Amino acid sequence: MAGLTPKTTRRIGLAQMQMSSDTDQNLDHAREMVRQLAQSGAEIVCLPELFRSPYFPREGNTSHFELAEPIQGPSTEALSRLAAELQVVLIVPIFEKREAGLYHNTAVVIDADGQVAHTYRKMHIPDDPYFYEKFYFAPGDLGFHAADCRAGRIATLICWDQWFPEAARLVALDGAQMLFYPTAIGWIDGEDDDENAAQRESWLTVQRAHAIANGVFVIAVNRVGQEENLNFFGSSFVCDPQGRILEQAAADKEQALIVEIDLNRIQEMRQGWPFLRDRRIDAYADLDKRFRR
Amino acid sequence: MAGLTPKTTRRIGLAQMQMSSDTDQNLDHAREMVRQLAQSGAEIVCLPELFRSPYFPREGNTSHFELAEPIQGPSTEALSRLAAELQVVLIVPIFEKREAGLYHNTAVVIDADGQVAHTYRKMHIPDDPYFYEKFYFAPGDLGFHAADCRAGRIATLICWDQWFPEAARLVALDGAQMLFYPTAIGWIDGEDDDENAAQRESWLTVQRAHAIANGVFVIAVNRVGQEENLNFFGSSFVCDPQGRILEQAAADKEQALIVEIDLNRIQEMRQGWPFLRDRRIDAYADLDKRFRR
Repeated sequence: MAGLTPKTTRRIGLAQMQMSSDTDQNLDHAREMVRQLAQSGAEIVCLPELFRSPYFPREGNTSHFELAEPIQGPSTEALSRLAAELQVVLIVPIFEKREAGLYHNTAVVIDADGQVAHTYRKMHIPDDPYFYEKFYFAPGDLGFHAADCRAGRIATLICWDQWFPEAARLVALDGAQMLFYPTAIGWIDGEDDDENAAQRESWLTVQRAHAIANGVFVIAVNRVGQEENLNFFGSSFVCDPQGRILEQAAADKEQALIVEIDLNRIQEMRQGWPFLRDRRIDAYADLDKRFRR
Repeated sequence: MAGLTPKTTRRIGLAQMQMSSDTDQNLDHAREMVRQLAQSGAEIVCLPELFRSPYFPREGNTSHFELAEPIQGPSTEALSRLAAELQVVLIVPIFEKREAGLYHNTAVVIDADGQVAHTYRKMHIPDDPYFYEKFYFAPGDLGFHAADCRAGRIATLICWDQWFPEAARLVALDGAQMLFYPTAIGWIDGEDDDENAAQRESWLTVQRAHAIANGVFVIAVNRVGQEENLNFFGSSFVCDPQGRILEQAAADKEQALIVEIDLNRIQEMRQGWPFLRDRRIDAYADLDKRFRR
C-alpha cells in the first residue's frame, strides 16, 4: 500500500504504587511515577484503583466519604495538567462524589491533551469481608464502553469487574484494543500460602482468558503493600491477545513498568482464532437472567 | 440437620482415546475404556468428540457424510446397553444424521439406566485450515442447557464452544455443576514448539477461567495421536471451581483417567467469590449484538 504506515506499537506504563495515609503525598507520588514512566517513553499510564488513599473499604465508616471528590476535582485537575505537559494519556481512578449521598468508584481517562476522554463507573461492586464496597459505591450507570484516545481505543474496567466475562466482552464489542483494570486486590492475613497463591493464580487466569476470548491486550495495575490486615499483592501485568503474560511486576514492592505492545497482534490473533465470527448471538438472550431455574 | 447426608463426591472418568480408521474398532475400544473406568469406580465417563472415526473435518469431502448416524443409532444403542450394564453415566459424542442433508456435531448424555438424559448439538462451529466443520455441521438449535443425571446436574459443550464464555455462563445459570467438553484439538504440522505450547496454554487458560467465573467443575476430554498432518494433543483435564487443575493426562498417549471431585467445593467457592450475586443483568443486553459499532 502507498503512503505512510502508521505506528502500531504502544508503550504502556503501569504504576504499581504503595499508598500512604497522606492523600497529598499519594498524589505527589503518583505524579512522580507518571513523570518517570512518561520520560521513559510511556504513551499511556494507568494508576491503581483509588490511588489517593489507603483502601478505605476495608471497613464501613461514614467518615471516609470525606475522601470523595468530583470528576472535575483535585485529582483529575492535577493529572490533566500533567497529562498535557507530558503529552501522555492517563487512567486516573478516583473515589467519585457525584452528589450528596451518591458516590462511585470511577476511572477517568485523560487524553494526552489534558481533556477527559472517557469516564467509567465501576459496574460490579464487591462486598466481602474487608472489601465492603457496597457500603460506599453505587453501582455504575454508564455501562461498558470503549473510547478513543491518543494511544488507541481503550476501555477501563475496575477490579471486581475482572471476574465477569460479560464486561470484557462488551468493551471488546465496542472496539477496545486495550483493556485496563485498575485494581486493589490483596490477601487477608491468616490465610495460608497455598490458598494465597491459588487466589492470585485465579485472578491472573480469569483476566488472561478475557484477552484470549476477545483478542485484546489486558493490563492490570494493582496496588502493593500491607494495609492493616490486607496485603495487596501487586503482580500487575500486561498480557497479549493470546493470553501470554508479556511482563509482570513483583508481588511485594512498588514498580514502574513499561511494556511495549504491538496492536497488529490483535488482528493476527483474531484471524487465527475467529471467535467474533462464530458467536451465537441468536442464543445468548438468557445472559440477562439472574438464573435460569 | 437430621437425616442422611448425601454423598457429595463424584468419580469422573476421562477416556483420552487415539482413533483408528476402523469405526467398529473405535467403538470396541471405547467400550473397553468405559468398562475399565467403571470397574475402577467412575460414575460418569466422557468420550472424546467424534470418537467413532478419525477427525474427518480435516478435509471437506462429501463421502464422510456416510459416517453419520442418528441419535438412536449404533453408537448410542451400544453404549446405552453398556451404561445400564455398568450403571455408569456416559457422554457419547456422535456425528449426528438428523435428516438427509442435515448433520450435527452432537453429544448424547446416557444416564446410568441406559436412557438418554440429554442431547446437545454443538452451537459454535469452527472453520479453520484443517478444521472445516462448517462444511459438515449445521449449527446446533437446542441452545445451552444443563440436565440431571445420576452423577449430578451436568452440561456438555463441545470443543470450539470452549472459547466462548457465553456458553459456559449459560449452562452454569441453568444449574450445571460439572461442565464437560468432548474435544478434538491438535497442532498442525510445521508450527514451532513455542507456538504449540502457547496454543495449549491458551486452551487450558480459557477453560480454567470458565470454572472460576462460574464456580463449576470443568472436564475436557481430548483425543490424542497423529492423524495425517494433525497432532491431537490430549492433555485432558479436570479443574475445580477455583480453576485448579486436579489432574491432567499426557499430551502424547492414550489414558484412562479417574478424578474424584467434591461437589461441596462449588458452594464453598461461590460463597467466597459471589459472582452470581453481582452480575449486572440490567447492562448485558448488547451481548446479543455481533459488534457494537
